[in-house]
Amino acid sequence: MIRFYNGKILTLADGFNIINGEVWVDNDKISFVGKPSEKDSEAHYFEQEIDLDGNLLMPSFKNAHTHSAMTFLRSYADDMPLQDWLNKQVFPMEAKLTGEHIYAFTKLAILEYLSSGITASFDMYFKLDDYVKANIDAGFRTVICSSTNDFGGSPEQDEEDYLKFNSISPLISYKFGCHAEYTTKLDTIKGIAKLCQKYKEPFYSHNSETEREVSECISRYNKTPTQLFDDLGLYEYGGGGFHGVYLSENDMQIFKEKGLWAITNPGSNTKLASGIADLSRMLDMGINIAIGTDGAASNNALDMFREMYLAAGLQKLKYMDASVCSAKDVLYMATVGSARAMGLADCDTIAAGKQADLIVIDMNKPNMQPIHNITKNLVFSGSKQNVKLTMCAGKILYRDGVYYLDENERDIYKRANKMLDDF
Amino acid sequence: MIRFYNGKILTLADGFNIINGEVWVDNDKISFVGKPSEKDSEAHYFEQEIDLDGNLLMPSFKNAHTHSAMTFLRSYADDMPLQDWLNKQVFPMEAKLTGEHIYAFTKLAILEYLSSGITASFDMYFKLDDYVKANIDAGFRTVICSSTNDFGGSPEQDEEDYLKFNSISPLISYKFGCHAEYTTKLDTIKGIAKLCQKYKEPFYSHNSETEREVSECISRYNKTPTQLFDDLGLYEYGGGGFHGVYLSENDMQIFKEKGLWAITNPGSNTKLASGIADLSRMLDMGINIAIGTDGAASNNALDMFREMYLAAGLQKLKYMDASVCSAKDVLYMATVGSARAMGLADCDTIAAGKQADLIVIDMNKPNMQPIHNITKNLVFSGSKQNVKLTMCAGKILYRDGVYYLDENERDIYKRANKMLDDF
Repeated sequence: MIRFYNGKILTLADGFNIINGEVWVDNDKISFVGKPSEKDSEAHYFEQEIDLDGNLLMPSFKNAHTHSAMTFLRSYADDMPLQDWLNKQVFPMEAKLTGEHIYAFTKLAILEYLSSGITASFDMYFKLDDYVKANIDAGFRTVICSSTNDFGGSPEQDEEDYLKFNSISPLISYKFGCHAEYTTKLDTIKGIAKLCQKYKEPFYSHNSETEREVSECISRYNKTPTQLFDDLGLYEYGGGGFHGVYLSENDMQIFKEKGLWAITNPGSNTKLASGIADLSRMLDMGINIAIGTDGAASNNALDMFREMYLAAGLQKLKYMDASVCSAKDVLYMATVGSARAMGLADCDTIAAGKQADLIVIDMNKPNMQPIHNITKNLVFSGSKQNVKLTMCAGKILYRDGVYYLDENERDIYKRANKMLDDF
Repeated sequence: MIRFYNGKILTLADGFNIINGEVWVDNDKISFVGKPSEKDSEAHYFEQEIDLDGNLLMPSFKNAHTHSAMTFLRSYADDMPLQDWLNKQVFPMEAKLTGEHIYAFTKLAILEYLSSGITASFDMYFKLDDYVKANIDAGFRTVICSSTNDFGGSPEQDEEDYLKFNSISPLISYKFGCHAEYTTKLDTIKGIAKLCQKYKEPFYSHNSETEREVSECISRYNKTPTQLFDDLGLYEYGGGGFHGVYLSENDMQIFKEKGLWAITNPGSNTKLASGIADLSRMLDMGINIAIGTDGAASNNALDMFREMYLAAGLQKLKYMDASVCSAKDVLYMATVGSARAMGLADCDTIAAGKQADLIVIDMNKPNMQPIHNITKNLVFSGSKQNVKLTMCAGKILYRDGVYYLDENERDIYKRANKMLDDF
């Protein structure tokens, strides 16, 4: 067992209260949270005792939308209009990706996730065997979302993947989805609807990222993407949409009624000039919200602190009102919200029986001082610099800037740079 | 002398070219940049030789608008409308500040600047003796901008401060200014105009931060703040304006003609819901632009990486065009631009004879990999995590997370928290 002591604990199991106490981790699970009696402490053997030194232990961040291996395109094509970016830069480069590339660039993304306190990704990409191997090798948790579209994948393949990847490792799970309405034939989408109903599973996709996506869908089907998916029965068992910048009032009603997750990506929506999702309205309506970084090609960082600041800040600009979208709202989205959005309800809070997916925040950095309010410090001035320790499934993968993975990070950087010659 | 070797050097003295070579520092100045001959190297004695290990040496960031001691209000009053924030929270708290508070909270800000690669601040606040002492004690460079307004300061005091603080230390300088048009009587502003002309000095102030500020100025004087200041002769020797969110086309023409600096504060303008300054238009017009963090009460971080990302990103959202405001534009603003805006032309680039105000960027972090383009990596995915070393006036003040100051940072945190009881 591992014992964390002498720290503050933000469990998020009970609002935003911060308690003083201990957290014990037994294998991959949290086994105790609170103030143990002397008798309790003596009755247990701890392989490792970690003095938190007054720092904050809290649930890790979960990245509810990303394309991990797209680190290969970081800073390759920036400051470009969206359509040129996709058609002239991204698609031709992606066509050259091999399984080895996927493995290597996923490993690079995992390094960045860990340094930002992220312990799980909801990832949509391809060459899944290589992708899964990278995660298992690193000890990182991931939920695969099918990226099926007209250029790759099929409902048949999805069913096979669903059965395979949901039983391959406790770190890996798989959700049905498609890339987006505008990239996927109706017959294919209908095939996925059948799978969702057969297995009673939720459905996820890019949804209403751009104005053009929505208007083209309306001209094709006389429906928004959300209406179309809902009418096809895809949301019978829940699910969610990535981006959601152009959800209509009616779309939001569907999100509310079906308990769907609006998974926001403020960094990517900023850099690609897509717009600002209406999180304030969604909060008012009680819609479930989660946060993702999107891929490094469009963000370009995989940094949940930046996403949290942007999620709150952009609402303030959108409404020209500094009081909308609070730090609490946003911190909840990035932790509990994101975990639940991707079906990781056992990784959402610090409580006995939950998976030990947690982080320690270094309060002894100037950006976290003075301590008027820890939640606000985290959201409005927190940064990767404050991530002191990242634990996934009970294993410390990152601590004080050092990685504990199967490969040395310098080798991962070297390989990634060498591979750029392949493109 | 200190010798940096085995690294990449972004001098910014010659566009964005990156050279391989060495940088030598002699006392407070850079004495050599480039590839030395063996003979040259042997002819010098180096007290310290620093292996850059392939990392990037570049000019440090300069923070061209801030109120350092406002760290005392970080996370104290957030998510509030601007007027409530100022009148109900900020002003009553500021009234209680003593010189000791100013010293202590300035020290805290300096810690944060250094961790973000910032080596100089253009600061507007009060109790200047205590403020100056904090900077000198820390070895940090600062340019004071007068904050004179109806509640404190006067042209007479400004003249005294000008003469005193411009000769007190090589690290300290002083510029004329006033807080803003809306807080300062016309007679006082006219008195400052006389000083600018007497000493042939530039003039700085908050300018057009909010729509209300501009419209109230127009109703008082039938002029925008920029027009008023220009008509009063304040800009005869240049200067600049902080924020500049609501500069009119005519104001921008004045900025262009007079060579004024538009000093943008995208983080603060976001969090206080002030709006987005039109940097794209200013870039098109060739207006000088610099970047500042503003104070920790409104931002809440003092982080130039966040400011750079926001400066570029918010333009993309403002214009709904991902191609506006490039990484190069923004990196230049935060380094060379900011240095020149605050009169530190000898601290702007890496070149022999310049002040040794420089940083080393850790490229061996996942967010800087792979290396397609270093400038884009810095602006779009760089973070404080990448600041490996910060040198001000030839002295290493921060390296590998460790501070080299006159006080231990834990003592600074402890004192800052203890002082919260005074408010």
